[in-house]
Amino acid sequence: MNVTAHIQPVDKEKGRRARAYIDTLTKPQGSLGRLEELAVQLAEITGEDFPLVTPPGVIIFAADHGVVKEGVSAFPQEVTAQMVMNFVNGGAAINVFSRQIGAMLEVVDVGVAADIAADGIVHKKVRYGTGNFCEIDAMAREEAKQALHIGYERGEAMIHRGAKCLILGEMGIGNTTASSAIVAVLSGKDVADLVGRGTGIGQETIVHKQKVIQRAIEARKPDKNDPIDILAKLGGLEIAAITGAILAAATHRVPILIDGFICTTAALLAKEMCPDAVDYMVIGHRSAEIGHEAAVHLLGKKPILDLGFRLGEASGAAVAFPILQSAALMLKEMATFDSAGVSNRK
Amino acid sequence: MNVTAHIQPVDKEKGRRARAYIDTLTKPQGSLGRLEELAVQLAEITGEDFPLVTPPGVIIFAADHGVVKEGVSAFPQEVTAQMVMNFVNGGAAINVFSRQIGAMLEVVDVGVAADIAADGIVHKKVRYGTGNFCEIDAMAREEAKQALHIGYERGEAMIHRGAKCLILGEMGIGNTTASSAIVAVLSGKDVADLVGRGTGIGQETIVHKQKVIQRAIEARKPDKNDPIDILAKLGGLEIAAITGAILAAATHRVPILIDGFICTTAALLAKEMCPDAVDYMVIGHRSAEIGHEAAVHLLGKKPILDLGFRLGEASGAAVAFPILQSAALMLKEMATFDSAGVSNRK
Repeated sequence: MNVTAHIQPVDKEKGRRARAYIDTLTKPQGSLGRLEELAVQLAEITGEDFPLVTPPGVIIFAADHGVVKEGVSAFPQEVTAQMVMNFVNGGAAINVFSRQIGAMLEVVDVGVAADIAADGIVHKKVRYGTGNFCEIDAMAREEAKQALHIGYERGEAMIHRGAKCLILGEMGIGNTTASSAIVAVLSGKDVADLVGRGTGIGQETIVHKQKVIQRAIEARKPDKNDPIDILAKLGGLEIAAITGAILAAATHRVPILIDGFICTTAALLAKEMCPDAVDYMVIGHRSAEIGHEAAVHLLGKKPILDLGFRLGEASGAAVAFPILQSAALMLKEMATFDSAGVSNRK
Repeated sequence: MNVTAHIQPVDKEKGRRARAYIDTLTKPQGSLGRLEELAVQLAEITGEDFPLVTPPGVIIFAADHGVVKEGVSAFPQEVTAQMVMNFVNGGAAINVFSRQIGAMLEVVDVGVAADIAADGIVHKKVRYGTGNFCEIDAMAREEAKQALHIGYERGEAMIHRGAKCLILGEMGIGNTTASSAIVAVLSGKDVADLVGRGTGIGQETIVHKQKVIQRAIEARKPDKNDPIDILAKLGGLEIAAITGAILAAATHRVPILIDGFICTTAALLAKEMCPDAVDYMVIGHRSAEIGHEAAVHLLGKKPILDLGFRLGEASGAAVAFPILQSAALMLKEMATFDSAGVSNRK
C-alpha cells in the first residue's frame, strides 16, 4: 500500500471563490479574521462551496515507549493501559469533549505494553511497546510501516463511517520524549530547546530527559531524510499510526485537526512523506510543551487556540473543533448584502 | 431601581474547592491550562460544585449614534436598522453562531434612528439615536439611566427564561467612535492610541475620527468618576443597555461572556459602578480594534480567543462560548484518578 500515492494538492481555485463569496456576506470585509481563513481552507480541502465538518471523528492511538525505563516521565508506564480503560469507560477529558462536539470516538491499541481486555477498543497491537531507544531501535522498520498502515486504515474507516473532519490524538507515557527526539532530528535544533515538562516533571528530570534524548540520537543515527527510519529508530507506534491517519484524511480530502506536540510531530513526518498533505491540516491549539513551537514553525502553521494545554488525547483539537465548525457555518448560513437588503460600504 | 445593590462578591471558597477537585481528575495537574481557570471562575460565580452554562442567552442591543454625521464610519447609518432586520431574518453572523451553540437570542431596539416594523424584536426605543456629541450631549442623564434599566430588565428576563450564561452584543453604526471616547476618558490614554479601523475606514478617516473624539471630549467634559455622566455625554444607548445587562447577570450570579471593544467598554462602566461585577465577566475574544487592548487591560482580564475578529454583534463571544462549555463539562463529567483506577504521579 502506498499511503501517499493518491494525495492531490488542495483546490486553490475553490478557495479563491470562497474568499470572494465571503466578501459578499453581511459583515465588514475581513471582520471575522481567522474564521474567514479557515473557511477558505475548508473549501480548498474539500473542493466544496459549502463544506461541512460535522460529524467529526476522533481517533486516539495508544502505545508505550521503552524509553520510560530511563525515568523520563512523571507517571508510571501502566498509566497508558489505565487511561485506555478510562477512555473505554468515558471518563477522560477526550470523552467529555467528544460528547460535547458530537464526535464519533475510536480508541486503537497500536502498541500498549499490556494486554487490555476490553471490547470498546480496536485491537491492533503491533508489539508490546517500543524498545528503549537509548539501547536499541524503538522498533523494526517493518513494524513502523505496519503501525503507519494501521493508522491509515483506521483513518479511512472513520471517514467511511461518515467523519467530515478527522481529530487525531494519542496516549502513551513517554511520548513527549520520542517526539522531542524526532523534532530535534527534523529541525536540527538543540535538544535543550525542545524538551519540556511533559506530563509534569521537574527541572532536574528535564535535564536528564535532554541527556537521554541526545544520547539516543547519537547512538541511533536516524536518517533525517527517511521518515520511516526516524519512526523505527525513535518511535513510537502511536506516532506512526497518527502519521498514517493524517495521510488517509489528506487522500480523502477530509480536514485534519491536529492536537498538540505529539500529533504535530506526526504531522511533520506526514509532511516529509508528502508535502501536499500539509494543506489539509489545521493545528487546534498551541501546546504549553516547549517543543511544540518548533514543530508548528516547521509545519508553517498557526494554531487556533492558545490556552496553555499540555494534555494530549486530542483534547486541544476537540476543544478547538467548534471554531472550525463556526467557520463552516459562517460560509453556509450567513446572508449576503444583496439577499438581506443591507447597504454596503459608502 | 438600584442596579448594583444586590451584587455580591463571587464565592472564592467555592473556587478553591473546585481547584482542589480539578486536581483529582484524570489528567496531569494544570494540563488543561486556561480551561481549569475558567472552571474555577464558573464555580466562584455560580456558587455551584458543577456549574452549567447551557443554554446560553444572547442579547443584542441596537442603537444609532449622532456622531456619524461627522463622517467617522465606513457604513451609512441606515445599516443599523437593516442589520436589525437581518437579525430578525436569521442571516447575520450572530444568528449563525447562536444556532450553533443552542442559544436563545433576543434583539432589542434601544435607540435605532428609524422605526423598525418587525415582530421579532423587543421594542424599547429610548430615542431615535443619540445626538452628535461634537455639538451636544449624546443624551439626557435620565435617558442614559433609562437605557441602563432597560438593559438590566432584558438581562434579568433572559435569565428568567433559563439562560445560564449571558452573551452580550451590539449593533450601532458609529459605536466604535463612542467607545473610543469613553475608553479615552476612563483610561486617560491618548485618543490616537485608541482609535482603529472600526468597520473598515482608511487611515485618513482614522485621523479624522481621532480629531472628532478629541474635540468632543474637550467640549463635553465628562466626569470620569461618574459613569452615567460619561454615558449621557458620549453615548450610546446600546452601551448603556449592555452595562445594565451585565449588572443584572452579576446580581443573579450568572456568568457574562463579553464580546469585543464596545462590550468591553460597557463592562468598564459596569466596573466603575460596581467593582465586584468584574469577577462575573469572561472576555470572549481579543478584538482587532486597537482600543480593545486598553479596555481589556483596565478590566484586568485576558480574552479566551485571539482570532482577529472586529465584527461585534456578540459574534466573538458566541464563538468563544463552546470553550466555556468545555470548562464546565470538564468539571462535571471527568473521572477522578480514584474512580477510574488510574495511577497518579510516581
